[in-house]
Amino acid sequence: MSSPKESSKKLWGGRFSKATDARTEAFTESISYDWVLYRHDIAGSMAHATMLADVGLITKQDKDRILKGLGEIADEIEKGVFKFRSDLEDIHMNIEKALEEKIGETAGKLHTARSRNDQIALDERLWLREEIDEIRQKIALVQAALVDMADRYVDDVMPGYTHLQRAQPVTIGHYLLSFVEMFARDSSRFADCRKRANLLPLGACALAGTSLPIDRALVAKLLNFDGVTANSMDTTADRDYLLEFAFSMTASALHLSRLAEDFVLMTTTEFNFINIDDAFCTGSSIMPQKKNPDVLELIRGKTGRSVALLSHLITLTKGMPLAYNRDFQEDKEILFSTTKQFKSCLSILEPMLRAVTFKTERLLEACEWGYMDATVLAEYLVRKGIPFRQAHHVVGSLVKLAESRGCQLKDLRTDELRAAHSFLTEEARSVLGPEKAILMYASAGSPNPKFVRKEIESWKVRLRDEGAIPGKKKRK
Amino acid sequence: MSSPKESSKKLWGGRFSKATDARTEAFTESISYDWVLYRHDIAGSMAHATMLADVGLITKQDKDRILKGLGEIADEIEKGVFKFRSDLEDIHMNIEKALEEKIGETAGKLHTARSRNDQIALDERLWLREEIDEIRQKIALVQAALVDMADRYVDDVMPGYTHLQRAQPVTIGHYLLSFVEMFARDSSRFADCRKRANLLPLGACALAGTSLPIDRALVAKLLNFDGVTANSMDTTADRDYLLEFAFSMTASALHLSRLAEDFVLMTTTEFNFINIDDAFCTGSSIMPQKKNPDVLELIRGKTGRSVALLSHLITLTKGMPLAYNRDFQEDKEILFSTTKQFKSCLSILEPMLRAVTFKTERLLEACEWGYMDATVLAEYLVRKGIPFRQAHHVVGSLVKLAESRGCQLKDLRTDELRAAHSFLTEEARSVLGPEKAILMYASAGSPNPKFVRKEIESWKVRLRDEGAIPGKKKRK
Amino acid sequence: MSSPKESSKKLWGGRFSKATDARTEAFTESISYDWVLYRHDIAGSMAHATMLADVGLITKQDKDRILKGLGEIADEIEKGVFKFRSDLEDIHMNIEKALEEKIGETAGKLHTARSRNDQIALDERLWLREEIDEIRQKIALVQAALVDMADRYVDDVMPGYTHLQRAQPVTIGHYLLSFVEMFARDSSRFADCRKRANLLPLGACALAGTSLPIDRALVAKLLNFDGVTANSMDTTADRDYLLEFAFSMTASALHLSRLAEDFVLMTTTEFNFINIDDAFCTGSSIMPQKKNPDVLELIRGKTGRSVALLSHLITLTKGMPLAYNRDFQEDKEILFSTTKQFKSCLSILEPMLRAVTFKTERLLEACEWGYMDATVLAEYLVRKGIPFRQAHHVVGSLVKLAESRGCQLKDLRTDELRAAHSFLTEEARSVLGPEKAILMYASAGSPNPKFVRKEIESWKVRLRDEGAIPGKKKRK
Amino acid sequence: MSSPKESSKKLWGGRFSKATDARTEAFTESISYDWVLYRHDIAGSMAHATMLADVGLITKQDKDRILKGLGEIADEIEKGVFKFRSDLEDIHMNIEKALEEKIGETAGKLHTARSRNDQIALDERLWLREEIDEIRQKIALVQAALVDMADRYVDDVMPGYTHLQRAQPVTIGHYLLSFVEMFARDSSRFADCRKRANLLPLGACALAGTSLPIDRALVAKLLNFDGVTANSMDTTADRDYLLEFAFSMTASALHLSRLAEDFVLMTTTEFNFINIDDAFCTGSSIMPQKKNPDVLELIRGKTGRSVALLSHLITLTKGMPLAYNRDFQEDKEILFSTTKQFKSCLSILEPMLRAVTFKTERLLEACEWGYMDATVLAEYLVRKGIPFRQAHHVVGSLVKLAESRGCQLKDLRTDELRAAHSFLTEEARSVLGPEKAILMYASAGSPNPKFVRKEIESWKVRLRDEGAIPGKKKRK
Repeated sequence: MSSPKESSKKLWGGRFSKATDARTEAFTESISYDWVLYRHDIAGSMAHATMLADVGLITKQDKDRILKGLGEIADEIEKGVFKFRSDLEDIHMNIEKALEEKIGETAGKLHTARSRNDQIALDERLWLREEIDEIRQKIALVQAALVDMADRYVDDVMPGYTHLQRAQPVTIGHYLLSFVEMFARDSSRFADCRKRANLLPLGACALAGTSLPIDRALVAKLLNFDGVTANSMDTTADRDYLLEFAFSMTASALHLSRLAEDFVLMTTTEFNFINIDDAFCTGSSIMPQKKNPDVLELIRGKTGRSVALLSHLITLTKGMPLAYNRDFQEDKEILFSTTKQFKSCLSILEPMLRAVTFKTERLLEACEWGYMDATVLAEYLVRKGIPFRQAHHVVGSLVKLAESRGCQLKDLRTDELRAAHSFLTEEARSVLGPEKAILMYASAGSPNPKFVRKEIESWKVRLRDEGAIPGKKKRK
Repeated sequence: MSSPKESSKKLWGGRFSKATDARTEAFTESISYDWVLYRHDIAGSMAHATMLADVGLITKQDKDRILKGLGEIADEIEKGVFKFRSDLEDIHMNIEKALEEKIGETAGKLHTARSRNDQIALDERLWLREEIDEIRQKIALVQAALVDMADRYVDDVMPGYTHLQRAQPVTIGHYLLSFVEMFARDSSRFADCRKRANLLPLGACALAGTSLPIDRALVAKLLNFDGVTANSMDTTADRDYLLEFAFSMTASALHLSRLAEDFVLMTTTEFNFINIDDAFCTGSSIMPQKKNPDVLELIRGKTGRSVALLSHLITLTKGMPLAYNRDFQEDKEILFSTTKQFKSCLSILEPMLRAVTFKTERLLEACEWGYMDATVLAEYLVRKGIPFRQAHHVVGSLVKLAESRGCQLKDLRTDELRAAHSFLTEEARSVLGPEKAILMYASAGSPNPKFVRKEIESWKVRLRDEGAIPGKKKRK
Repeated sequence: MSSPKESSKKLWGGRFSKATDARTEAFTESISYDWVLYRHDIAGSMAHATMLADVGLITKQDKDRILKGLGEIADEIEKGVFKFRSDLEDIHMNIEKALEEKIGETAGKLHTARSRNDQIALDERLWLREEIDEIRQKIALVQAALVDMADRYVDDVMPGYTHLQRAQPVTIGHYLLSFVEMFARDSSRFADCRKRANLLPLGACALAGTSLPIDRALVAKLLNFDGVTANSMDTTADRDYLLEFAFSMTASALHLSRLAEDFVLMTTTEFNFINIDDAFCTGSSIMPQKKNPDVLELIRGKTGRSVALLSHLITLTKGMPLAYNRDFQEDKEILFSTTKQFKSCLSILEPMLRAVTFKTERLLEACEWGYMDATVLAEYLVRKGIPFRQAHHVVGSLVKLAESRGCQLKDLRTDELRAAHSFLTEEARSVLGPEKAILMYASAGSPNPKFVRKEIESWKVRLRDEGAIPGKKKRK
Repeated sequence: MSSPKESSKKLWGGRFSKATDARTEAFTESISYDWVLYRHDIAGSMAHATMLADVGLITKQDKDRILKGLGEIADEIEKGVFKFRSDLEDIHMNIEKALEEKIGETAGKLHTARSRNDQIALDERLWLREEIDEIRQKIALVQAALVDMADRYVDDVMPGYTHLQRAQPVTIGHYLLSFVEMFARDSSRFADCRKRANLLPLGACALAGTSLPIDRALVAKLLNFDGVTANSMDTTADRDYLLEFAFSMTASALHLSRLAEDFVLMTTTEFNFINIDDAFCTGSSIMPQKKNPDVLELIRGKTGRSVALLSHLITLTKGMPLAYNRDFQEDKEILFSTTKQFKSCLSILEPMLRAVTFKTERLLEACEWGYMDATVLAEYLVRKGIPFRQAHHVVGSLVKLAESRGCQLKDLRTDELRAAHSFLTEEARSVLGPEKAILMYASAGSPNPKFVRKEIESWKVRLRDEGAIPGKKKRK
């Protein structure tokens, strides 16, 4: 930390007649967390210097020295030998100061035609692109794990629930693919967010651009952006890209929370549908018999982190006057920690899913109870020409009868069936029982293994294209 | 309201041995708010019936009677003569019951191969599409108003702010276009949300599809969907489309809040930058002199509504087990009211903006104070070869000098300028003063009228294409 | 609705040269929802008029006519014959205008020394007090239902869970009382909120009090407030009371959500711990066999409403400049609807709880499985002098043995027990089995029926005092 | 970090046949942030051991060795020489293991009759008490700074605003005290939170208490709690205390955000009401003339942090089944960081406020414009017997006249006044002008210096009692 005297040498200190209070420095610094942007900051500065030389604002020699200096700084930070100073406030000033110490006065040319306002926007957008790419890859790996499981259990039945009551039998494969669909939407939202964010903010400077003849399109090209932002005030006042990112994480975290909830339920003694390998569970400090699905619980709990980030950014930007305000500095710390947490959930979920075993016999047995073939039986009557409402009522009364008897629908005598409706002959029995019901499903998107199998194949192609499943890519 | 006896005749009452408690009915009904979905529910039922006939599950005669009956019901509701009954729970059951009263037992065939779980998802998606289209049109109209204003004030200067401190002069046109950019991103988010939502959920039935040979693709085509959803469990468990819609409104509401904040500031006696026509202001019940920018304040305040909806849906879906749960019924009431409020903000904003006058002379005068030409002066030095950091320091000391003198930069004597740096000759004066500074801006996206004019033209083309500005469309 | 011409006659229209735009009127009106405050508004006005007469600002005759007029207006509103006009904006102006129509110019004296800014704060605080009192009474009734159930099941065992894994046996009575504790904290939070809110805001006027010699203490006394607010600017800028109320509802709604979650789980086929009377369940439109715990699901889902209100108010007040801003008008609509929803949850919960039956035999049986007596067995060893860590390990190994054998701890042979630790003799068996374990609990606050019984008695006294249980009150 | 082999030696590893996966360890560990609870954990363990000896569950020798060992561990952590191990998961296990290494097998007796479930609840409550005490002290210091400023500016006028429009003149002292009131409510909410949290959770163990004869009341006394929690299941399932704490911070942060907003406005060139010492401002990296109120902006921005924590905890606890779930581990990291941030705002605010100067002449001048004496003039008419509504209208028309003339009310000629109303004679002028208006205020809680002075004295007494202002305390 710097002494007050040193801090009077602030790079922006020209008009100030008094040193910054040490408490102000401690309160306003961001280097303790924005240092993680060093790679992006340096990459941005390199592109900026290249452009400055290209348009003649600095010489080629200046550019070369700047690039060399920045390269060395990057190395030092990578190696952990760089000393960050909080009196230099942020990553931008820390790097510029270090550059000055390396190459002298020339370093002072780097900040030509830019401000920290557009510089931080650039760093954040570069960071965001990377994170989104990494997240989408992790999502694909989770999807791949689910698709592999779906493949393994494509024909096996399990109870499907509505209101957490047994509703209709489904296949495990179908159930698992439902999460693959959710994650696909998540991934697509992240992609849209990336698309909207992928414009170069640099050159907006403080808020009004610059009177110097810069070439923003060149910088955009060097940094692989789709184009440049259109309005300098909007550019420095904008944090939409973070807000949308926070929402994309929230939506996905909510899916994770639902998966976790379901799987926690399935590990209970009562459901007893799955087993999770010991390697992904922990025990109790007091109860010797416990084996807890902690990983799932923590994934569920971490949902709140993404929601927290979203709430934070909403609160932060509400009612902000244009353009840049220092409040925006607060967008980063919780962004970084939340993103890390969110990624950790995806990272652990993939191996954990692969360590889950479905207890297929127990699941089959569970399907026997709950009258889950009632709907298919009602539809049998529909096929015989009975209006659905009437069929629904007929079967409802049979359920009541069976329940009072403590038996299943298939255990009712044929004369009892017929008493409910004359069309319920021996033939009707052919649709009863979960394994039969599964094969009766005829609609696109239903749990019938024949549909599920097709879905699995289609997912394998997609995930192979995304590199999440080994094999030859189809996409070109 | 129904008596308990009546309610034992619930359409799903087959297995129940006891009537629903009146308090349960009152607590669980949704008809008091989901009646607004009647058009979508009926449109969905019509397409469904058409398909049922097409695949032979009902006869053409059945279909015709159903369509005729539904058409009549739609008319009755439009005319306000339809009597909604809360003992019939929701819009689906109210319409089905009314149909039964019109066409008898055939009505009971309509619910073939569908459940309220996929039916409500359909209704919501149809509703969402409409709302998004309407919202995007309203956004375009607000943008058109801003573009028109930008056109009017394309050459006029105003102070640009960072940290709410005068920073650099900008043009009013440029300032106004910054909001046009924000709303463009909003509109694009709504479009992405629509794209992801535009798949037919019907046919997912309760959660597992159906054993009946339905044709989902046909229904999708009849209702103008891009395709059908891929997994029946996901389909009935999914509320992503609402969550994303709520977020899209929130992001846009935050932009509205920032515009409102800025404009409220500009109406203060202290800023005194704009005047809002009396027609869009109100007075005080106690202070006779007051004229308040209430419309803007309410727009800012209504931001919270969208945030509320988003928070609600997050809380609602967190940790929900698959597939449908009754909790989802709670997605609607606040959705409808929030959307209405959000649209009302856009609706009033457009005429209100058109009733705003910028006080250009006062704004010009404001630009004289605040040393806002300091950056351009520093950049002048950069063009002379001085490293920016040094130039920044030189100008900083001049600002300190001028401030102590109570004058502007241009009021300093040339020898004083030169004392700060030998390159600051008489020529340097040519960049001083806001009106000169504006014309110096050379970077793409800056407030220089020459760039702003181009942007305006480009926006006019886009908004003409969207029908928000009169004229011939270019888009094909 | 008024024509533009009429609206130029606004009570505050003196300085305005142009009528309010009809869209502005529609956008800014609040009478469509703040009419519910009519009782509070009138009560406040009556007290205000009484005070004005007392200090001589109006005559006794004026006061009498005002009181009579207000009384008639109250009657008309109660009877539903009062016609609210949206061009009169809000409840305050609607009533004042109606008073003018009744008693002429004297009505114009009522608004002496007050503003709508302090008037709405008064109305809201009066409303809040009532709502809190009603909510606390409803909470007490829910607690009473839980205490009655606890009484019924004081000796019956059920599995206690951590991580949703069976952990240790508890008594149903103990389990039910855990919710009584939560609701007690909720009630206490509401009481604290009421305490902080119970100060008279009237007299703060627009923001600066008044030059007229009013007697605020008298109004406070007439309206049963604990005192008057201390600072007029704070008073009109303050919405803490609503924020705290929204939080109190949220905290309580979260408890409701946890109760609902648990009870939904217990109604599943898998848990099968409780039965809810048909009167509080509903069926499925497609699956004839379904009986769904909809009431519980909706209670859980409605949690989001309170969170929404809280988020709304946070967003609303963030960064508001002092003192009153029109944004505050937005505090009401969602406040009223959320409070209604929250109360409806409490109202239905009480009879629903009374319609729940615990399946005690099934619960006892469930306690046999899950090695839930392991902890008590480890504690047996501790009493013999074995360090707990060692005892925990010994019993852990016995659990592993029993699990591999598919039996319970009590099914292990004595020599097997002794092999694990020499102190595990025949005597050790005396603590095994859930019913024995329950009686072993020795710590205050544990599920041992002897403690639970005492708690029940203590709750009965408290709830009798609150009028939620019939009987003689003890409190003085 | 531990190797897999080591981790099979988990303290709870008895029943496990396989080591924990390294990724699981990394994902589930909490020691990286819960280490901050070490003092509380050790204090709790010391009290627990003391009680265990008191009731005879361990010997006095055991106790002495445990206490000595724990004392040494505390020292090592304080000195920074303690090595935390993430394979030992959390602070509890790290300390217990270290104790074992120090005193051997006796360490295994410490976890007698407790679980990590009640232990963490204890640690959190002890932490919470400390934080609340510290926060309340910091709030009092901020209040003291405000009261000192109020004292300095007790007679000086400034414009009071509603709708950010000049409304009525107030005194600076009065304005500043409005924040003192807000912070007083905040402090009182923290106190209520502390009161509700101040019950001993230890002894609830995992969820069901213990069969061992512990003395919870003794531990409560040793740790200075008001009593013990009443229900073991509720105790381990409860996080109300954190939720309420998060809300208390949010409510207070919202007040900070409003103060910051106001002060940022007052630093603008346009308002120009205050000056903040350079020591609490920073400059711009591009614009040499800038002096920004960063501290205020960051305080405003950090509001989002408290909201984030609140949202997180709401999301976390929503729908949690009883009793403890691992999700709760997620309550801590963001809790600690948010609390630190919140305290930092209070810490910097106090010196920053003391570095603020109000520009009293400029403020007086500002009060001349905006017709802020209109209300007092209307009240003058009321004192003459004119109904307020009529008086309001009369003065409204005078404002219109003065506005058209570009003059103030006091600049109107007496005949013009009289033309508006015959009672507006020369005498009426005596109430015009801000400095006169201030002295006219007659209502309790108004900005009249005579009231403000009393308030200041009363606050000084209170703050002296709280130790925030030097001097002799009155409270006994």
